[in-house]
Amino acid sequence: MVRSVDPRTGEEFGPAFPDAGPDVVRETVNKAVFAARQMGWGEPGVLAAGLRAGARALEEDSERLVEIADRETALGSERLRGEVQRTTGQLRAFADLVDDGSHRRLVVSTLGPGGPAAEVRKVNVPLGVVAVFAASNFPFAFSVAGGDTAAALAAGCPVVVKAHPGHPQTSAKVGTLMATALDSVGLPQHTLQVVHGGVATARALVQQRDVAAVGFTGSTAGGRAISDLAAARPSPIPVYAEQGSLNPVVLAPSALAEWDQKVELFAASVSAGQGQFCTKPGIFLVPADKAPRFAEDLAGALGRSGPAFVLTAGIQRQFDDGVAAASKVPGVTVWRAERPDRGFGVAATVLHCATGELISSPELREELFGPAAVVVSVRDVRELSRALASLGGNLTGTVHGAEDDSWTEAAVAVLARHVGRLVYNGVPTGVAVVPAMHHGGPFPASNSARYTSVGLDAIDRFMRPVAYQDFPPGLLPAFAREVGPA
Amino acid sequence: MVRSVDPRTGEEFGPAFPDAGPDVVRETVNKAVFAARQMGWGEPGVLAAGLRAGARALEEDSERLVEIADRETALGSERLRGEVQRTTGQLRAFADLVDDGSHRRLVVSTLGPGGPAAEVRKVNVPLGVVAVFAASNFPFAFSVAGGDTAAALAAGCPVVVKAHPGHPQTSAKVGTLMATALDSVGLPQHTLQVVHGGVATARALVQQRDVAAVGFTGSTAGGRAISDLAAARPSPIPVYAEQGSLNPVVLAPSALAEWDQKVELFAASVSAGQGQFCTKPGIFLVPADKAPRFAEDLAGALGRSGPAFVLTAGIQRQFDDGVAAASKVPGVTVWRAERPDRGFGVAATVLHCATGELISSPELREELFGPAAVVVSVRDVRELSRALASLGGNLTGTVHGAEDDSWTEAAVAVLARHVGRLVYNGVPTGVAVVPAMHHGGPFPASNSARYTSVGLDAIDRFMRPVAYQDFPPGLLPAFAREVGPA
Repeated sequence: MVRSVDPRTGEEFGPAFPDAGPDVVRETVNKAVFAARQMGWGEPGVLAAGLRAGARALEEDSERLVEIADRETALGSERLRGEVQRTTGQLRAFADLVDDGSHRRLVVSTLGPGGPAAEVRKVNVPLGVVAVFAASNFPFAFSVAGGDTAAALAAGCPVVVKAHPGHPQTSAKVGTLMATALDSVGLPQHTLQVVHGGVATARALVQQRDVAAVGFTGSTAGGRAISDLAAARPSPIPVYAEQGSLNPVVLAPSALAEWDQKVELFAASVSAGQGQFCTKPGIFLVPADKAPRFAEDLAGALGRSGPAFVLTAGIQRQFDDGVAAASKVPGVTVWRAERPDRGFGVAATVLHCATGELISSPELREELFGPAAVVVSVRDVRELSRALASLGGNLTGTVHGAEDDSWTEAAVAVLARHVGRLVYNGVPTGVAVVPAMHHGGPFPASNSARYTSVGLDAIDRFMRPVAYQDFPPGLLPAFAREVGPA
Repeated sequence: MVRSVDPRTGEEFGPAFPDAGPDVVRETVNKAVFAARQMGWGEPGVLAAGLRAGARALEEDSERLVEIADRETALGSERLRGEVQRTTGQLRAFADLVDDGSHRRLVVSTLGPGGPAAEVRKVNVPLGVVAVFAASNFPFAFSVAGGDTAAALAAGCPVVVKAHPGHPQTSAKVGTLMATALDSVGLPQHTLQVVHGGVATARALVQQRDVAAVGFTGSTAGGRAISDLAAARPSPIPVYAEQGSLNPVVLAPSALAEWDQKVELFAASVSAGQGQFCTKPGIFLVPADKAPRFAEDLAGALGRSGPAFVLTAGIQRQFDDGVAAASKVPGVTVWRAERPDRGFGVAATVLHCATGELISSPELREELFGPAAVVVSVRDVRELSRALASLGGNLTGTVHGAEDDSWTEAAVAVLARHVGRLVYNGVPTGVAVVPAMHHGGPFPASNSARYTSVGLDAIDRFMRPVAYQDFPPGLLPAFAREVGPA
């Protein structure tokens, strides 16, 4: 059973949502299969209209949604208002893509008579029913009507979302609004469904024969569990898991001029969303002579950013345990802000260590999901490269420094091999939803470095190509009939 | 230890190739990692020159290669000469792609100041060291210098090939020619390496930490074993496995006019490559009143195609066992040609059954890797749809029939949901290497329906995107500097 809890007080409120047991999960997926049959490969006009109707419905109920979500997540109305906007923006961007048709990636090869084929047309079609595991940290943009759902619907796939237990009321409300909106344009019933529950519900969903793909946003351990289940099925399915990330930031010696400005910039990035962004900068690599002061100043700025509450008791416990383990590493200095003594309050924390400690202590390379960062003293470019290489796969890597600084060049060279996005003189939080965005990265940041969960290319995850060889136009689906590039 | 065996006689000949043990595999991969470091992300001019030099080297030694390969595989000189041509064609097509640069899929989004980013550039980079498991049935086109290798090299990835034990001398010779060719243009030593061995070597290779992806062509069981190992690694890697396929062919009532011509066409397709094509038509769905005669005529034509020898004793055993199991299903009629009583000879076989038997007997839905096919009597469109749906994922589905035949429409509707390529009024064998080709399909035909192992898009399997956010041109790799579409 799932119930809302106010992170600011730790008190339960609102209705109880029963866990979907195996029978409910099976029925839900069967309904989605029936919806898929009715949809065929999706009428573009209807799909686009459905996505736009969903966006309008969320907008119209935006204030009420923000109110519920703020009480469930403590993320603040301003941030949540922005997130609803991002969510409706995503839905509309995918609607435009469906209108445009370029996601079909139609390719036509004309060979003429005499060979094995005279003409081949390749075109993308939907994979089938998609299961989406909603994120803890984005109750709108990566939940029921979030990026994975928008991409899957636009691809023509019915979606079953497992709501995150951290915001069940928001999820249920968004689910109802979206389902009504999709229905209003003539899409089949059960094109979008929401189930609630915990690990057992998640397992049942991934193991349903007719689930064709999974979108997941969460921890590395959670993503791994889902991926392992999917890989062990009689018929394995792809899991697109966006997992944990440290998002290293390198400050080259040439970057330390505008000190105060940089400190404020990074403190805001570390504490954004109460430190629960997947792109939160978690490790700063700083020239050794400046690192201790940087750590102290960063801690000061974080302390001024107000009391921090994470989403759930579980996240709170993991954060506290992670900070405690990292703090115990010999040689580590710790700055801790005050911890609110109510709800799921956590203490903003900065840890400082040397490169050797970072490399030899896995505790310092664990993601701390909350307002915490590790500052590492780096003595030279050689240490910098070694430190960066020890961090493994990450969603992002950020470099501050002059173009001709040897630290800049070394950092870019190593990071490019290990991250999905490189940021120059900026912060990794604030992911622009644009065609060129890549939100993914080598394991463990994601389990499929080829794919993005943000931006329009996210749709590729839920489609597969079919090649039509020597087909008469009358037997081709409409979207394969247009003449493509030769 | 691996040694060549002549399938026509069963006799061993030529040198023994020791199995690569765990140490050799580790060293080989380490050398590949070193090559990857030297290559960086690949100088396009050098990569393209290397692929072309490889093609020239194979061409120059073509006659000698065909001679060795024919003795190792019994596939015949004519077919093997054509296969060398296809292989050099593939290498040159990928060289052209590297020159062209479109495989980088550069996307530029310009946002301007004020947002989280002013400009984002996304571009594909190589994944790292690729392991290729060579196919049994294509000693050139899907082996050491085959499609997977060409795609991986073009992507900028060093390659370690595990040669197929069925043609070790051909593999070794091609490996030496290719390595010399790559070396001659200035690519690092060990950009392409070949190891020999069996299951233990395969396991060791997949489990090497620094192997970033696997290309596999072979059986469903083999692909599954490799995929399971890859998924269980501490850091899982993608396996692109092209596995078994039944490749159903539907003959609608309207398709039966040019009877003799069709029978000859299909017999040639079934027996091509001694029945060892992954696209071999294995199941024919034929109107019930014509099916018995079709089976008989097909068997007659197959019988006239000369003695058949499969590649290895293992393939021979599996073929014989599979045919025996299918023959035992009650109600099945069997036509068998004479079996050569030497080497790895097999009897071309046609089995005939009703739709009910096909659906209820898994033995009739197992791939028979050799010159055999199952002809199914289908009474009506309803039975046709049920029969096709029972076959699961396939590489191809073929339909012969008039456009307005209700069988045609029904067959296309069901097949499109289950196959990677649909062929109209043709044969599935003879895969055109063109941009629009898709050679893959839903499980178990492949383990990643999104990808193709034939055609230029095969390169996508060995690259991943990196997004550069607000990078000055001087810090971008050259291939990310060109202005892309906004």
